[in-house]
Amino acid sequence: MKEVQGGIAAPAGFKTAGVRCGVKQAEGRKDLALIVPETEAAIAGVFTSNIVKAPCVVLNQERIKSGKARAIVVNAGNANACNGKRGMEDARKMASITAGVLGVPESMVLVASTGVIGKYLPMDRIEAGIREAASGLHAGGGGDAAQAIMTTDTFPKETALEFELGGAKVRIGGMAKGSGMIAPDMATMLAFIATDAAVDRLVLQGMLSRAVKTTFNAITVDGDTSTNDMCLLLANGAAGNPLLTDETGAEAEKFRQALHEVCLRLAKEIARDGEGATKLVEVTVRNSHGAAQIAKTIANSPLVKTALFGNDPNWGRILAAAGRSGVTFDPEGVEITLAGTVVYSRGAPAEFDPSAVSDGMKAKELSIVFDCKETGGETATVYTCDFSYGYVKINADYHT
Amino acid sequence: MKEVQGGIAAPAGFKTAGVRCGVKQAEGRKDLALIVPETEAAIAGVFTSNIVKAPCVVLNQERIKSGKARAIVVNAGNANACNGKRGMEDARKMASITAGVLGVPESMVLVASTGVIGKYLPMDRIEAGIREAASGLHAGGGGDAAQAIMTTDTFPKETALEFELGGAKVRIGGMAKGSGMIAPDMATMLAFIATDAAVDRLVLQGMLSRAVKTTFNAITVDGDTSTNDMCLLLANGAAGNPLLTDETGAEAEKFRQALHEVCLRLAKEIARDGEGATKLVEVTVRNSHGAAQIAKTIANSPLVKTALFGNDPNWGRILAAAGRSGVTFDPEGVEITLAGTVVYSRGAPAEFDPSAVSDGMKAKELSIVFDCKETGGETATVYTCDFSYGYVKINADYHT
Repeated sequence: MKEVQGGIAAPAGFKTAGVRCGVKQAEGRKDLALIVPETEAAIAGVFTSNIVKAPCVVLNQERIKSGKARAIVVNAGNANACNGKRGMEDARKMASITAGVLGVPESMVLVASTGVIGKYLPMDRIEAGIREAASGLHAGGGGDAAQAIMTTDTFPKETALEFELGGAKVRIGGMAKGSGMIAPDMATMLAFIATDAAVDRLVLQGMLSRAVKTTFNAITVDGDTSTNDMCLLLANGAAGNPLLTDETGAEAEKFRQALHEVCLRLAKEIARDGEGATKLVEVTVRNSHGAAQIAKTIANSPLVKTALFGNDPNWGRILAAAGRSGVTFDPEGVEITLAGTVVYSRGAPAEFDPSAVSDGMKAKELSIVFDCKETGGETATVYTCDFSYGYVKINADYHT
Repeated sequence: MKEVQGGIAAPAGFKTAGVRCGVKQAEGRKDLALIVPETEAAIAGVFTSNIVKAPCVVLNQERIKSGKARAIVVNAGNANACNGKRGMEDARKMASITAGVLGVPESMVLVASTGVIGKYLPMDRIEAGIREAASGLHAGGGGDAAQAIMTTDTFPKETALEFELGGAKVRIGGMAKGSGMIAPDMATMLAFIATDAAVDRLVLQGMLSRAVKTTFNAITVDGDTSTNDMCLLLANGAAGNPLLTDETGAEAEKFRQALHEVCLRLAKEIARDGEGATKLVEVTVRNSHGAAQIAKTIANSPLVKTALFGNDPNWGRILAAAGRSGVTFDPEGVEITLAGTVVYSRGAPAEFDPSAVSDGMKAKELSIVFDCKETGGETATVYTCDFSYGYVKINADYHT
């Protein structure tokens, strides 16, 4: 398994484009992307658990049932959410314009939108953007597309891996965007992944659902989940490997590992680029019957996150957050390790040099390990970031 | 029912004091308070739901079972939490020193601590503080005591009401402190309330538990709940009313209303003084089977709270937060009113002037009404504040 360039367009038989059509207010920023497999591709998807769902989510959840797709059209700068009937009409229109321009069935076009909620889409600009993007589709367009789906992201997020599968060289490439309203169970997050592997659509869905669980659904920036989140995975079979028809076995395991790695890399980039973030924080809870719940509560605690921003080894906030998680554990049995140093153990503060730990916390990547020492407990990791002035600035200023 | 001066010392037969003993780092700030009924008082209490409980909480939960108290000793600046065996020894020592100095049984002394977690109490200073406070106890000491329990609070919080009960003039007075780690189910919050009414201890506990539910447990600053939170209520009977022995009836209702009002005033002051807060926000959810849960989720959403700080009528974030609350509702049926203006109705954005609503949001008190329009649904209100740079500054700088 090796890293390759090209992002979502790295696999064979995919063309992409990213253009500016003027939905985003900021001058010059791309805001419309097309992802087009050259032939019909198998499709899998995972969607937001928020009961307030944007029309694009509702539309895609219906269309994905066929298991086949010919194109994905994405706009950034406007989420087209909570816009009543007109919102759904506009989402359908985005798909039908794309279908018309590309000459593919409308029912096989998926739609994604991200940005401000409650504003109608400027459909004339969207239409012009789709036409421009369609005319500029090319195999090297991954970088442009990754830029075009950004909102408050400070950098584009893309990755691609190559590995051998059934005697063929296959690739999985993907792109994603954050970076607020990020929480487990999806958020303002969009992720699009493409592979040239041949994979049965049900196997593809099973693999994606599993991968998302410990990657995209294990990140949190602010605990808010959005109305538009989705992760879509296209597989066009252009690599020529024998069709993967089973989720188990050595070949499936290879694909699973590579897909997990692509998802994990993109997920961590989203957490690293959380709004206002200055560092990526990995919260691991060990040996607990509610490991994921405790990890999520610690990772979402504003008090923990501001202490992380301030490089303050304030383990008391970590313990207090865990204590309100709803999971029972024995506080006397817990051991907390912060940036590699044990700071709390056997029910009492451990002896440590606070300034040395504080220095260690200044790193760009930081870990918190919360070990409940319960026999038979599980381990779970959640990825998050610190909470800075920048978060407040971005979210107080990002006006509707 | 009329407002009177004096805070917690307003009722007859209570003496209080607040002194500086040097637990708080900041020069000159008071950090130790005593609350002493002149005779044995009935006592009721409500405590944190966090499973990580400070020794003072554990101790009080045990001692309160007798239903009687002679003194409460409180220190600020150090929570004496997560300090192992020594923490419990120190909490007991605080009580025994107080008992010795006042000449009352140790088992009838309650203890409260608030501040940094995981540091041992400087017991020599605490002891000197208790002696100084005991020698300065007086009936007008409510203001000093309210100051002495503050941590990151920017102002002391106290209130007192006078009303007629069973032919006697009775008073209820209280004080409280916030102002981070504040969430429903108690937080870094301490509240102490005194009344000179004669109330049976079981009735007193029932009344307090009910009052807390819609007041102290209906505020949230950051969703974090602490290890030390408690609300204690003393009733010494000095007013001379016939003993209240029933939670129902006209007299009980009068007492219930006054107690609720005292709790509500203190709770709102805590929310208003939330760390970094620039405004008090009242989130009311109407006509929903999960009104409290939706209100709490909206009130805790960092995206909603930063928009409130930015005076941004971003109702999409309110709707999105409600959508992830875990409560089902029909998004098409919801009506959202922000600062008195309907901003979302019948599944689509309402027509409104954003700059006028934004101007309205600049007020010091602000309301959000989220009406699910479900037949037979309930109404719940949660009090919170906005989320500003100040919150980050306070919590990144408040070092352990």
